[in-house]
Amino acid sequence: MSHRLLDQHRATLAGALNAIATREYWSPYPEMPSPKVYGEGAQEAGKAAVQALAGGRFALDQPGQTGWVASDRSPYGVKLDVQYPVCDPEALLAAAERAMPAWQKLGVDGRTGVCLEILDRLNKASFELAHAVMLTTGQGWMMAFQAGGPHAQDRGLEAVAYAYREMRFVPAVARWEKPQGKNPPLVMEKRFEIVGRGVALVIGCSTFPTWNTYPGLFAALATGNPVIVKPHPWSVLPAAITVRIARAVLAENGIDPDLVTLAAVDKPETTQWLATHSKVKSIDYTGGSTFGRWLLDHARDKQVYAELSGVNNVVIESTDNYRGLLRNLAFTLSLYSGQMCTTTKAILVPAGGIDTDTGRKSFDEVAADLGGAIDKFLADPATACAVLGAIQSPETLKRIAEAPQAATVVLASRKLSHPEFPRADVHTPVVLKCDASKQSVYMQERFGPISVVVAVPGDAAALAALSEQIVREHGALTVGVYSKNPAFVDAMVEATQRAGVALSINLTGGVFVNQSAAFSDFHATGANLAANASYSDSAFVANRFRVIQNRRHV
Amino acid sequence: MSHRLLDQHRATLAGALNAIATREYWSPYPEMPSPKVYGEGAQEAGKAAVQALAGGRFALDQPGQTGWVASDRSPYGVKLDVQYPVCDPEALLAAAERAMPAWQKLGVDGRTGVCLEILDRLNKASFELAHAVMLTTGQGWMMAFQAGGPHAQDRGLEAVAYAYREMRFVPAVARWEKPQGKNPPLVMEKRFEIVGRGVALVIGCSTFPTWNTYPGLFAALATGNPVIVKPHPWSVLPAAITVRIARAVLAENGIDPDLVTLAAVDKPETTQWLATHSKVKSIDYTGGSTFGRWLLDHARDKQVYAELSGVNNVVIESTDNYRGLLRNLAFTLSLYSGQMCTTTKAILVPAGGIDTDTGRKSFDEVAADLGGAIDKFLADPATACAVLGAIQSPETLKRIAEAPQAATVVLASRKLSHPEFPRADVHTPVVLKCDASKQSVYMQERFGPISVVVAVPGDAAALAALSEQIVREHGALTVGVYSKNPAFVDAMVEATQRAGVALSINLTGGVFVNQSAAFSDFHATGANLAANASYSDSAFVANRFRVIQNRRHV
Repeated sequence: MSHRLLDQHRATLAGALNAIATREYWSPYPEMPSPKVYGEGAQEAGKAAVQALAGGRFALDQPGQTGWVASDRSPYGVKLDVQYPVCDPEALLAAAERAMPAWQKLGVDGRTGVCLEILDRLNKASFELAHAVMLTTGQGWMMAFQAGGPHAQDRGLEAVAYAYREMRFVPAVARWEKPQGKNPPLVMEKRFEIVGRGVALVIGCSTFPTWNTYPGLFAALATGNPVIVKPHPWSVLPAAITVRIARAVLAENGIDPDLVTLAAVDKPETTQWLATHSKVKSIDYTGGSTFGRWLLDHARDKQVYAELSGVNNVVIESTDNYRGLLRNLAFTLSLYSGQMCTTTKAILVPAGGIDTDTGRKSFDEVAADLGGAIDKFLADPATACAVLGAIQSPETLKRIAEAPQAATVVLASRKLSHPEFPRADVHTPVVLKCDASKQSVYMQERFGPISVVVAVPGDAAALAALSEQIVREHGALTVGVYSKNPAFVDAMVEATQRAGVALSINLTGGVFVNQSAAFSDFHATGANLAANASYSDSAFVANRFRVIQNRRHV
Repeated sequence: MSHRLLDQHRATLAGALNAIATREYWSPYPEMPSPKVYGEGAQEAGKAAVQALAGGRFALDQPGQTGWVASDRSPYGVKLDVQYPVCDPEALLAAAERAMPAWQKLGVDGRTGVCLEILDRLNKASFELAHAVMLTTGQGWMMAFQAGGPHAQDRGLEAVAYAYREMRFVPAVARWEKPQGKNPPLVMEKRFEIVGRGVALVIGCSTFPTWNTYPGLFAALATGNPVIVKPHPWSVLPAAITVRIARAVLAENGIDPDLVTLAAVDKPETTQWLATHSKVKSIDYTGGSTFGRWLLDHARDKQVYAELSGVNNVVIESTDNYRGLLRNLAFTLSLYSGQMCTTTKAILVPAGGIDTDTGRKSFDEVAADLGGAIDKFLADPATACAVLGAIQSPETLKRIAEAPQAATVVLASRKLSHPEFPRADVHTPVVLKCDASKQSVYMQERFGPISVVVAVPGDAAALAALSEQIVREHGALTVGVYSKNPAFVDAMVEATQRAGVALSINLTGGVFVNQSAAFSDFHATGANLAANASYSDSAFVANRFRVIQNRRHV
């Protein structure tokens, strides 16, 4: 039955296995929301599906239900008020453990087939998911569709492919025949069973409720573990839709749907209780460093895969495409109002200025030109709203308001009105500048549309050293460099290899430092404080299952 | 230069890669100490080499040397008094970090070639290593040769093969070409660098100073990390010889030998200082649970691969080969006086007795027959001394002396005189028996030649349940079962999969529950309290390196 699903999706699996081996461009889930691909009326149907959920009860038929909770918060000011089941976490854990043995017995091919089917069904629901992501996170529509739909599905599939590769490498059975000189050989049959570690808890973040949830969800699931999805209380809807689809696929295939459940939890204490429960064996977490550090300190007997915050930086040493540089950075700093874990926070520029194709630019000119480029890029309000989306959290609104007190303002934030959502919190980015000596200004993550241009005294080596220091001390998911000088680019390659962070070099076109493409870019390195794992590599999956053997003579 | 070494050992690598894929029998390092393989006079030369070291200074030319220390302790009563360099641990860490970048740049093939050459040279030194292992651990000669020499080398090679497979899967470079509809595609070149986590600390145990050290040593080294080997103070010599050979191979190939150093440390505080130092990024540990738990609690920001203690058990439900069962268990309980982490501690037998091919046996008969089988097996003093070896630790001597107070004695321990080593501590096993209700008797690891036959009331299900409970509560590396009943064997397969422990079924011939064959048997599962990792699987290597990428348009 379940091998049928693997057969059905075999081309997708083969494509994914090839993609993780080559890390070349590939995706089975089209990123363009085209009616030709997703069907006529799919967009309207997805929107209507989400609207139909508003104000209603999102039934999931989970065990131990004690009530309902509505906690979504829309940065667009849309009242969602979807009621999610509140379940006794003890009951969710018990149900997860009950579902696990049959899931183990389904075997590698069976589990992989089911995961691929869930991903396919998620893909077909991309418009519904996109609307749910957009309304709960404040992402612009196109980003919500792409990052919340196909790109998130890509990341889920990537994790399934790595898991499949590792599990398939373990032979199910081996005939061990050891020569004994003139005597008959010792012969044994050894059987190797892939056994999941146990209940996986996947804790989502408020800004990317699918993209940052699917890797852990599918890595854990494919490797034989039940999963409890604990979304951020403000972005439950995309996770709830995901869980509903997963449970439907499981049930249709005769598998206990309680293998995947939603923990709609609005109290941090409940999450802490779950995260430290002895039945929970692994935790995937994306979010702030405070709770992340607490997890790493308190959930010590579990496998914890954590993506926390950091201070991403871009180093501008020189450029032969100054306008391209400014356009590229303007987009990076504007996209989703900088509410990405990959957005640049500090832009390091020599205090003495830089060489460009349009002449020497002083530090102040670079800062001002960047501000100008953002201003120009966001001049059209329709474009601005589409790119910026809305500010997700009151904390971010507060940071925007307070930013001008921290340093000299290069570009002030403006509040925009959204043509479709009058109550949306739309704010253009604020850009500050300061000297490198003012470390407190730029050596912290100001999550949201706030960046600092830093004047760095000394030579190019000082630039690279400061970039490395920021990554070492605060962690980072991305570093960028602009330089005409191959030796300096090489120095940055070395510095980022030492500090353990991915480097983007001279991005002046249609690729941005804050973008990470599944199957090709490793998202986070696991080698600095910003994250202890990567989407996705072998390390992300290999320790989620163990091999239990038995042997006997034959 | 270093690819030359890979070319030289390519057949070995290919064999190892095939072996880890099939987990069938394979080894490139002959386990028979035959002059035809190892050369005429190799045995005498190895012995002479160790004798020549006694009382002298074991120079390693390491940085920061502050003095010398002699701490080896021979259970055979042989005075070794080899002086090892004491080095400032800060200097060892600094030297390790200095050696790391060039090791990284050597690349996967270069590092793998060097590791294979070190293993080859260790193999050629098997007799010297065997004598060092024998004298410091108390192992019998043949075991010291096999487990301390070729089998340890096998485990090192196995780790190198897994590391190679994982590192090789990461492409060095990818061309990423994303279609843009009617526009030209986005094209990037992405480079992926394997970067080790940083200094690895490998903490050895007193009983298997090479077998339990090589997996971590070679896994860390192959994946790009410098390694500090911290042997148990009583078994330094085998580690020192290993480090000397590794440093020689490194130096011969133009690599900074401080990549691998020996930390001869006789104070636990120094080990604790090293284990919690920020420069140490991974720790491999084999030894007691007390220090192991301390490590897991205090070295939280590091990757810790720990093998601790547990309570291995064998379940006897019935047998169609009673004499084979007794012979097999007698050997298991005698080999190296039970001083193996895999030796059976509790033998669970139905209180109502068992069916055998020689008729029904009461519980007391089974216990008595097991005692008798051990007595008979060890009747010849020469055989006894060769199999038992000597008692490694005064703590174990104390446990043997105190064992009779814990429960009814089935077989008392006898002290034997060793024909060659008059001061050797040779003691035959003690076997106790008790009821299952006396949990304190058998639910603890009494390291050494002490085992307990436990009378389990109830049906077969109760037997399996008790076995599972022991593993769940105390951890285990091995479980065995004897049964004529396929349904009961299946039940034990399920129970051990749930509890996460390897199962050996009906061993009555030349394979023993406490033996673990490299390339085929996974040693420890990483799924219960006795160990959090396994020799070797992907999880043992995949998180020892990270992938750091850079990307640029082309």
